[in-house]
Amino acid sequence: MSTARALALRFAENAVERDRLGGTPKAERDALRDSGLLRMSIPRAYGGHGASWRETLEAVRVLARADSSIAHLFAFQHLMLATVRLFSRPAQWEPWFEHTAQRNWFWGNALNPLDERLVATPRDGWHEFSGIKSFCSGALDSEMLIVSARRRNTATVVVAALPTQRSGVKTLQDWDNIGQRQTDSGSVAFEKVRVEDDEILADPGPLSTPFACLRSLIGQLCLNAIYLGIAEGAFEEARRYTLTEAHPWFRAGVERVERDPYVLQHYGEFWLTLESARALFERAADGLDAAWGRGEALTHEERGDLALAIAASKTVAGRGGLDICTRMFEVAGARATHSALALDRYWRNLRTHSLHDPLDYKIRELGEWALAGHYPEPSFYS
Amino acid sequence: MSTARALALRFAENAVERDRLGGTPKAERDALRDSGLLRMSIPRAYGGHGASWRETLEAVRVLARADSSIAHLFAFQHLMLATVRLFSRPAQWEPWFEHTAQRNWFWGNALNPLDERLVATPRDGWHEFSGIKSFCSGALDSEMLIVSARRRNTATVVVAALPTQRSGVKTLQDWDNIGQRQTDSGSVAFEKVRVEDDEILADPGPLSTPFACLRSLIGQLCLNAIYLGIAEGAFEEARRYTLTEAHPWFRAGVERVERDPYVLQHYGEFWLTLESARALFERAADGLDAAWGRGEALTHEERGDLALAIAASKTVAGRGGLDICTRMFEVAGARATHSALALDRYWRNLRTHSLHDPLDYKIRELGEWALAGHYPEPSFYS
Amino acid sequence: MSTARALALRFAENAVERDRLGGTPKAERDALRDSGLLRMSIPRAYGGHGASWRETLEAVRVLARADSSIAHLFAFQHLMLATVRLFSRPAQWEPWFEHTAQRNWFWGNALNPLDERLVATPRDGWHEFSGIKSFCSGALDSEMLIVSARRRNTATVVVAALPTQRSGVKTLQDWDNIGQRQTDSGSVAFEKVRVEDDEILADPGPLSTPFACLRSLIGQLCLNAIYLGIAEGAFEEARRYTLTEAHPWFRAGVERVERDPYVLQHYGEFWLTLESARALFERAADGLDAAWGRGEALTHEERGDLALAIAASKTVAGRGGLDICTRMFEVAGARATHSALALDRYWRNLRTHSLHDPLDYKIRELGEWALAGHYPEPSFYS
Amino acid sequence: MSTARALALRFAENAVERDRLGGTPKAERDALRDSGLLRMSIPRAYGGHGASWRETLEAVRVLARADSSIAHLFAFQHLMLATVRLFSRPAQWEPWFEHTAQRNWFWGNALNPLDERLVATPRDGWHEFSGIKSFCSGALDSEMLIVSARRRNTATVVVAALPTQRSGVKTLQDWDNIGQRQTDSGSVAFEKVRVEDDEILADPGPLSTPFACLRSLIGQLCLNAIYLGIAEGAFEEARRYTLTEAHPWFRAGVERVERDPYVLQHYGEFWLTLESARALFERAADGLDAAWGRGEALTHEERGDLALAIAASKTVAGRGGLDICTRMFEVAGARATHSALALDRYWRNLRTHSLHDPLDYKIRELGEWALAGHYPEPSFYS
Repeated sequence: MSTARALALRFAENAVERDRLGGTPKAERDALRDSGLLRMSIPRAYGGHGASWRETLEAVRVLARADSSIAHLFAFQHLMLATVRLFSRPAQWEPWFEHTAQRNWFWGNALNPLDERLVATPRDGWHEFSGIKSFCSGALDSEMLIVSARRRNTATVVVAALPTQRSGVKTLQDWDNIGQRQTDSGSVAFEKVRVEDDEILADPGPLSTPFACLRSLIGQLCLNAIYLGIAEGAFEEARRYTLTEAHPWFRAGVERVERDPYVLQHYGEFWLTLESARALFERAADGLDAAWGRGEALTHEERGDLALAIAASKTVAGRGGLDICTRMFEVAGARATHSALALDRYWRNLRTHSLHDPLDYKIRELGEWALAGHYPEPSFYS
Repeated sequence: MSTARALALRFAENAVERDRLGGTPKAERDALRDSGLLRMSIPRAYGGHGASWRETLEAVRVLARADSSIAHLFAFQHLMLATVRLFSRPAQWEPWFEHTAQRNWFWGNALNPLDERLVATPRDGWHEFSGIKSFCSGALDSEMLIVSARRRNTATVVVAALPTQRSGVKTLQDWDNIGQRQTDSGSVAFEKVRVEDDEILADPGPLSTPFACLRSLIGQLCLNAIYLGIAEGAFEEARRYTLTEAHPWFRAGVERVERDPYVLQHYGEFWLTLESARALFERAADGLDAAWGRGEALTHEERGDLALAIAASKTVAGRGGLDICTRMFEVAGARATHSALALDRYWRNLRTHSLHDPLDYKIRELGEWALAGHYPEPSFYS
Repeated sequence: MSTARALALRFAENAVERDRLGGTPKAERDALRDSGLLRMSIPRAYGGHGASWRETLEAVRVLARADSSIAHLFAFQHLMLATVRLFSRPAQWEPWFEHTAQRNWFWGNALNPLDERLVATPRDGWHEFSGIKSFCSGALDSEMLIVSARRRNTATVVVAALPTQRSGVKTLQDWDNIGQRQTDSGSVAFEKVRVEDDEILADPGPLSTPFACLRSLIGQLCLNAIYLGIAEGAFEEARRYTLTEAHPWFRAGVERVERDPYVLQHYGEFWLTLESARALFERAADGLDAAWGRGEALTHEERGDLALAIAASKTVAGRGGLDICTRMFEVAGARATHSALALDRYWRNLRTHSLHDPLDYKIRELGEWALAGHYPEPSFYS
Repeated sequence: MSTARALALRFAENAVERDRLGGTPKAERDALRDSGLLRMSIPRAYGGHGASWRETLEAVRVLARADSSIAHLFAFQHLMLATVRLFSRPAQWEPWFEHTAQRNWFWGNALNPLDERLVATPRDGWHEFSGIKSFCSGALDSEMLIVSARRRNTATVVVAALPTQRSGVKTLQDWDNIGQRQTDSGSVAFEKVRVEDDEILADPGPLSTPFACLRSLIGQLCLNAIYLGIAEGAFEEARRYTLTEAHPWFRAGVERVERDPYVLQHYGEFWLTLESARALFERAADGLDAAWGRGEALTHEERGDLALAIAASKTVAGRGGLDICTRMFEVAGARATHSALALDRYWRNLRTHSLHDPLDYKIRELGEWALAGHYPEPSFYS
């Protein structure tokens, strides 16, 4: 964690500038490579740090306080590693884990399951992937990619892991959005890309067993860690600004802004929001470690309980975080809108990222459980 | 806990009727006496069950789901026992603990620190207590009372434990409020009551050490357990009603109310509220056990951290609970307002009890910490 | 309006007591009869006061501040008169108007369109009504009833006006709910009741023209006026209590509760809620008068615009009112929960009445307009 | 109004680009000059259009839907004109009105009353103004400035109108904030600027009479019109995006996003917010016209009632608008975060502008009225 904290301090220094620039945070990606954190979640047996999910996600959260784009890339690294672990045979994922640990491979994402433009045509011993994929966070400057495609004719989903440098793969620099600006969440084009059969994650494959279905929950909890980190970062920066720069309103009748009853109320509300989000997040992260430890013995019900815990936690963090990112200005005042501070980046980052999958349907899932005892149906989002 | 659950089932049977009647729940108080639960928090060494605070408060919560008045009386029993433990010398509290365990004494409360009408006049080796005290939950039908008074001349607070039957003590049956109707939270009159010096809780006394200051936190967490239990009870009853009685609105376009998107949303929101409240409550209760275990070694900072955890937890439970108690009707429908169901008792109970001390100032305390790092100043409410 | 104000003052005197008792407010109903207000909305040509809808609904609102049950009965009187005006031929409604004006007839409601247990069997020149109807506000002690039934075989709705004393009609005293306790909104049983053809409101009939479809909007606006009146009544009583009874919290650091920053905040929020509700209500009521004045020339679009204005107004009043009815206790304090004050009756009345039709579907209607420009589909609720 | 609409259409075309650039919207300012709208609120007798405040503010609102920076500059033009009208003698403001009407003068603001760095030193028949002033919206590229300064020794406020080209006046291009980016709300430096006595607005002077005190209310209502316009613009753009670009979530079970129950709910809520804000705004604007028409006969109470109406209206628009600007993305989806759309500008603009004066103290003022009947104390903000 001290490594993550040190990196966060470093990333914070130019986070505002990089938010303005967008594009690939090449120096920061390399710093992550050099730090050894890219192998954090890989078991020691394969050369990694053997960190628990709680620890890995805490690192995500620490990074997100300083720079949620970098945290996003880092979280997806471990989500991609979990993906190969959960969807493929040991003969597949073991060497990938080892190579990642040895060579500090960065893994990128080309798995958006809602974008069906990428088609896999079965050939003899391999598939040909052609088409395009959007929202491919971290694909640029990565060594490995996880790719999902629609298999021609059957329309089933096929997921593969392949080197980003594979002939025909082209990572496009077309990500220019209002938030999470350095996640390179743009498109990847595939032109007659050859994917060998042993690169296909087919055994046990996606959504095949309750254990394999942990993949989407890890993804959701990664988002959660980022949302929470953003909210905590916004809170901390608001706090620093209030204490050092803000003045009481002329009608407040107090000498110092720390005594303004309404400023204190806002901070009290922020605290309630953060504490709720933290308690739920820590519980969910511990729950993930417990479920992960169960391996293929994990039952549908155990997986379901974890899904509910993560859904609640992510929702509270996302919704509460947006409120803090908007209200932080009310405890800082008009001068805090100066562009040099870029305090709006917290809202822009969280607003952008929290649209990953709709809040309304996450709440509906919780309602289906609360009312009728139905677990969320496993999918790439639940 | 099975005893508490069994009692809760029994109390639920006529909770609606007793809510209507108000007054003293004599049969239920005796059932509590018979159950042995009045000694639940007393260490085994003194004849009790040696339950942790987490366990004791879970029993409060279980009872509150069924009947929050009874839960209130039960919670205050253990708060009163904690009071003598924290404020008096072993030579005082040890026999009280033993007698309580042996004889199933019920302890009542006459400690409202904001009501200064009761005056203690120092005599030779004793004090004379004269005056009146309001909001004395559980004083009626109790064996022992904890009483606070203002010491004549010095205006300091003096707290004593004495038998309810002591000559000159008169418990008035003047509690008739919109909620918590069977808590007998009325007045107790004291007319020249003789209180011996060894009945005075003066060593170490109220608010004397961080450990002694746990008393108010235990009180706050008792309220929290009751708020949470009410919210959970309301949720459960709403759920039962929705599933068995409610019909979809004619414009909903669904066959069964369990598929109404807005009904599911309400339940999802209820779940978010409950899960936040539960995660915070469980963390706070475990924190209390840890702090309690520290004894007089407890530091100001440790006590402060616990105070913050409890303040957050109680606030979330109280505020979220009121929302559930109001919105539960929207998932049940107009017919759920029938008086025979008395579903409004959840709102009335929580509304009444959550006025114990103002939410606004609890949030302000959290704000003082969040902004400037000030711990809540110990008092009878923080 | 001065008559309504005088009655409101009188009704306020024993509103708490009558809330406790429930049942029929016979004396108050007779006072309404004696006051002449039962003919308030009847045009002067037929012996009435010729009040506008704005004026009539203001009288409802004034009464609702004091006693929302009575306001409900009074509002339904004029809704019933509007029903015969809109659904029947002049040869039908003109004598009913005249008789009502001359004899101070009170009209009751047996028109719940969602209760399909009452069946009308066509006979030769008449229908036989048999079955039961629920939620019949104001049927008890009425001179006339408006009744809806399902016509046997065709399953279409038939609506009739008939004397409450008609043989076979039995108003049951089975209303005992948590709020609106003196509205007698219980059941009416019909046993082989003979309804003449000229008592059937078939020409133009329910929901037949945009103008006839004003009926449901008048009903919604009556609810709106009551919700707003309840909210205003709660506000006024909270205000009086705060100013005369409440004390500042010991940590507030102010001498008088009027200077407590959080109390002022609550009142500021109450004011925002009330002002929003008032501005929308007044606009909607004026809109109803304009639409009413258009008569059969009223277009679908004009009716649609009014429906939207009323839906918005009712929603804001209902939702905002509930918030005031819950929060009013936070500016009054724990002692305000005394049963003798019965301050919970505001919440109970509004909670009960606001379940008439689901808020969620009213908001959905507004959304259908806001997003896609679809007017609410006319029904008995829109 | 058609002129304003035409300009709004034109400004909308490159609003995204200009938001990115910041700086002075010179072409748009000149378009406003050419349009004649700079004299809109000037009475016909002085060569203006004689528009009412309602009309003028509607033009502000129309412009704000397209570009809230331009709306801001336009609103301040008329606020500055009102300032000279209210604070100075006819012999002063009449020629200024005439010149403005004839020559399309643009007026800028250097009146921030909370920035006390600008000092006016009385000389013989003139004052020397030296120092700096922040938040000077529209000062750049203006013909006239309204300037407030602290009078040396007495510390009273002196307000003057003078040509922007006056020797020693320097408008700094130092406005680079996250929102309202083309308002040039930067600093103006004054170096030994000579201000003649007849340029001082001293008779009747600021805050001198209830009528003169309308100035701050006009300012508040200008903000209100801008907030409302931003909210309406955000709503319209969200609507267009939802209808043309958004897809239903894969679990929604609907063919078209217009049928998604939660999307409809968001739009319903947006509508409620907008309708509340609109009803209050229109009432407040009409109230301003009525008060304006009263002239110096305006009483303290009449002015107070208007202050309350405007405070409520502005608060509802600001708070509700922020909610729409945040939630608009939930009905548009993740792809709507593309930078080319710059949909975040609504939030950035409203967030920035709504910090002009703290919401919390506006609500407190409403509370002081609601609880104790105290009118807001006239100031530059109330």
